[in-house]
Amino acid sequence: MNILEESSRRLMQRLAEFAEYSDEPDGRLTRLYLSPAYLGACERFCQWARIIGLTPYMDAVGNIRARYEGRRVGAPALMIGSHIDTVRNAGRYDGNLGALAALSVVEMLIQRRERLEIAIEIVAFGDEEGVRFPTAMTGSRALAGMLSPNWLDAKDDDDVSLRDALMASGCSPELAQQARARDVFAFVELHIEQGPRLEAEGLAIGTVTAINGASRLEVRVLGSAGHAGSVPMELRRDALCAAAEMVLAVEREGIKAGDVVGTVGRINALPGAINVIPGVVTFSVDVRSTSDQTRQQSVSKLEANFRNIAGRRGAVAEVTQTHNANAYECDNRIVSGLDAAVAACGQKVFHLSSGAGHDAMIMGQICPAGMLFVRCAGGISHNPLESITLADCEIGLATLFEFVRTVRPDFEAA
Amino acid sequence: MNILEESSRRLMQRLAEFAEYSDEPDGRLTRLYLSPAYLGACERFCQWARIIGLTPYMDAVGNIRARYEGRRVGAPALMIGSHIDTVRNAGRYDGNLGALAALSVVEMLIQRRERLEIAIEIVAFGDEEGVRFPTAMTGSRALAGMLSPNWLDAKDDDDVSLRDALMASGCSPELAQQARARDVFAFVELHIEQGPRLEAEGLAIGTVTAINGASRLEVRVLGSAGHAGSVPMELRRDALCAAAEMVLAVEREGIKAGDVVGTVGRINALPGAINVIPGVVTFSVDVRSTSDQTRQQSVSKLEANFRNIAGRRGAVAEVTQTHNANAYECDNRIVSGLDAAVAACGQKVFHLSSGAGHDAMIMGQICPAGMLFVRCAGGISHNPLESITLADCEIGLATLFEFVRTVRPDFEAA
Repeated sequence: MNILEESSRRLMQRLAEFAEYSDEPDGRLTRLYLSPAYLGACERFCQWARIIGLTPYMDAVGNIRARYEGRRVGAPALMIGSHIDTVRNAGRYDGNLGALAALSVVEMLIQRRERLEIAIEIVAFGDEEGVRFPTAMTGSRALAGMLSPNWLDAKDDDDVSLRDALMASGCSPELAQQARARDVFAFVELHIEQGPRLEAEGLAIGTVTAINGASRLEVRVLGSAGHAGSVPMELRRDALCAAAEMVLAVEREGIKAGDVVGTVGRINALPGAINVIPGVVTFSVDVRSTSDQTRQQSVSKLEANFRNIAGRRGAVAEVTQTHNANAYECDNRIVSGLDAAVAACGQKVFHLSSGAGHDAMIMGQICPAGMLFVRCAGGISHNPLESITLADCEIGLATLFEFVRTVRPDFEAA
Repeated sequence: MNILEESSRRLMQRLAEFAEYSDEPDGRLTRLYLSPAYLGACERFCQWARIIGLTPYMDAVGNIRARYEGRRVGAPALMIGSHIDTVRNAGRYDGNLGALAALSVVEMLIQRRERLEIAIEIVAFGDEEGVRFPTAMTGSRALAGMLSPNWLDAKDDDDVSLRDALMASGCSPELAQQARARDVFAFVELHIEQGPRLEAEGLAIGTVTAINGASRLEVRVLGSAGHAGSVPMELRRDALCAAAEMVLAVEREGIKAGDVVGTVGRINALPGAINVIPGVVTFSVDVRSTSDQTRQQSVSKLEANFRNIAGRRGAVAEVTQTHNANAYECDNRIVSGLDAAVAACGQKVFHLSSGAGHDAMIMGQICPAGMLFVRCAGGISHNPLESITLADCEIGLATLFEFVRTVRPDFEAA
C-alpha cells in the first residue's frame, strides 16, 4: 500500500470517528459552532495535528489553525482547510473532508520528510453553516478582517450571545483582530460538491470557477391570535396562512428566475397550540445565484411580495436581511494550478460553479482563492445520506497534495 | 354594597391573582395540565374552597372537586365549574371564570346560610385545552367514564407520558375509574363567549344551545432534505412547500364549506436550518362545525387533498386523527332553566351556539348539560387581550346563582 492509499484510508476512518462529535445523543450528527461537540472536535483535531508534530491552536474566534513551516522560516503560506461545524442532522463529509484532508496533506509531507518553498497553514473554520447564530462564516470573516459591526451581539435560540459563547469556549472575542491571516498568499479548499453534476459527468473531481452569492432574510409576520373554534374564517388575520403564501412565493421565484434558488428552511408559529390561530410567524429565506444582480432583484421582488401578501390579509410583514455575500469568481491563477494538478493525477479537467457558499468566497477577498469539488453520491448533502467513495477521496487528496507541492507564491509553473 | 356586587368584585380579583399561576417567567399566562403552575393553581383553588368551609380534593386525574351538601345528606348534585388549564400565552378568563364563579356561587350560599334541596359539586377541570398532551378534556372524560384506550401513554413534547405526569403530581391514574361523577343530575358551565356575537347584540349574557364538534389531525409530510444552495429547484422534494399548500387548503376548506372553521396552529420543519431544504414537516389541523356530517366531510376532503399535494411533489403525507368530538346539542330542560334565570336577572334571553369545544359536551354524555356565555371584548380569546367587564361578570354570576337556586333534579319550575 503506497503512502497516498494509506493516507486516504486513514482520512476516511478519521471522518467516521469525527462524526461521533455530535450535539445529538442518538447517533445523528449535529455540531453547532462553539457547542460542546464542536469544542470536542476541535480538541480531537488538535490531537491529530500534535501527533504529527504540529503546534495547533484555537484562534480568537474558535478556528483551529496549525502552521507547517517551509524550508525557510517565515515563508509565505498557502492556507488549506475547510469548516468543522455542521448543520443539524448533517452528513459527515461537508466541511470536515476539506479540514481533515488539509491535515492529511501535511502528514504525507512529514512522512516523506519533505519541506516546501512555501509554508502551509491548516485551518478548520467554525460557523461556516451559520446555523446556531444569525451570522455565517464568522471564522473566515475573522481571518479576512470582515467581521460585521455588532457581530458579537448576535444571539442563538437560547439567547446566548456570540460574545458569551466565545468567552465560555476560552476564546478571546476582544482580540478578534489578531485572528487575521498573515502572510497568506492563497487559499484552497477541498469540499464535496453537494450537487449532482460530477456524478452526471462520471467524474471524481472538478475545479470550481465561481461560488454563488447568497442573501438571507428573517421574516416576521404579525397577524392576530384567536380561538380556533370561535373566530369565523372571514374575521381572521392568520399569520401562518400569510406565511404559507410567502413560502410558496419563494419557491415560485426560484423556479421563475433562472439561476436562482430560494429556500425557507426554518419556520415557527406562535403561540403554537393546536387550537389557537397563529398570531406571529417567523421564517428564514435563503436566496442564491451566480449573478449578484439577479439575486438582488429576486430579494427585492420577494420583499415586495411579502408586504403585498401580508397587506391583503390585514397582517404585517417585517423583513430583515441577515446575510449578504456576493458571488465570488475564483482566481484564475488558482484555477489553472488546480487544473494542472487534476491533469497530473490522471483526471479529466472539468469546471463547475458552486451553488453553496463557502469560506473560500470570504478568503477570496484578501488573497487568491479556489476550490476543488469531490463527487458525492446522488448530489445529496446536509443529510445523513451524504457519502463519497474511498477512490474519490484518494483522487481528491492526491490532487490537493499535487497542487500544494507545485504551487509557487507567484503562481508560476513549478 | 350587596352580596352579589361584593362577590363579583372578589371574583374579578381572584381571576387577576389566579393569572399569576403561570409556567412563563415573564408575566404571560401559560398553565399547562399538570405543570408546576397548574398544580400551584390547584392548591390556591383548594385554599379558597377550604376558607369557606368546603373539603376540596384532587381526584385521580388532577381535577379539583368539592361538594356543598344539600339540606338532605346525599341529595342529587348539580355539578358546576369549568377548566383551569390554559393555552400558551392565554387570557385569564377562558375556563377560569367558570371554575372560580362556581366557588363564588357556593360562597354566596354559605354567606346567606342557605342550603338547597340539591347538593352542588364544584369542579375545576384539567386538560380541557389539550395543549400539553395529544389528548383533550381528560378531566371531564374521566368524570364521564369516556377516557380513550391508551390515554395514559400519550406523551408531551418532552416525551413525558400522561401516566408519569399524573404520578408525579400525586394523582392515581390507575384509579381513574373512581373519578367518575356519581349522583350528578346535571352539569352547567359558565364561560366567556370567545366570539363576537353577544357584543354585536349588545348583550351581557347568552344561553348556549349547541357546541361545535371538533376533529384534530396530526400531519407529517416526508420530503427530502438537501442543501439550499446546490439542489436545483426542479429536483427538490421540499416538505415545507408541500405543507404550505396544505395550510392554504385548510383555510380554503373553512371558507368554502359553510359552518366549518379550519386552523393550522402548530408547524415544525426539520432539520430546521436556514440553509437546508426541509425534509420533514409536521403540523396540526383543527376542524370544527355544528354539523358532524359537514365536519367529517371536510376532514375526508382535506385528507385526500393532502395526499394529492404530497403525491404531486414526490412527497408523502401521513395523516393521523388525534381527536374527534361530536357536536353536542344542549339539553333543552337546562336551556329553559337558564333562559328563566337570564330573564329573572332582567336580561334579554338570547340563544347562541359555541364554536369552541367545552367540557360540557363531554358531561352531556352522562347527564343533561348546558352553558351560559358571558360577553368578552372584541370576541378575543386565547390571547392576553381577553377581557370582560365587572358589570358583565356580575350578570353572569347572578344568572348562575339564580339557576342554581331554582333548578330541581326533575327540571320542573321552581
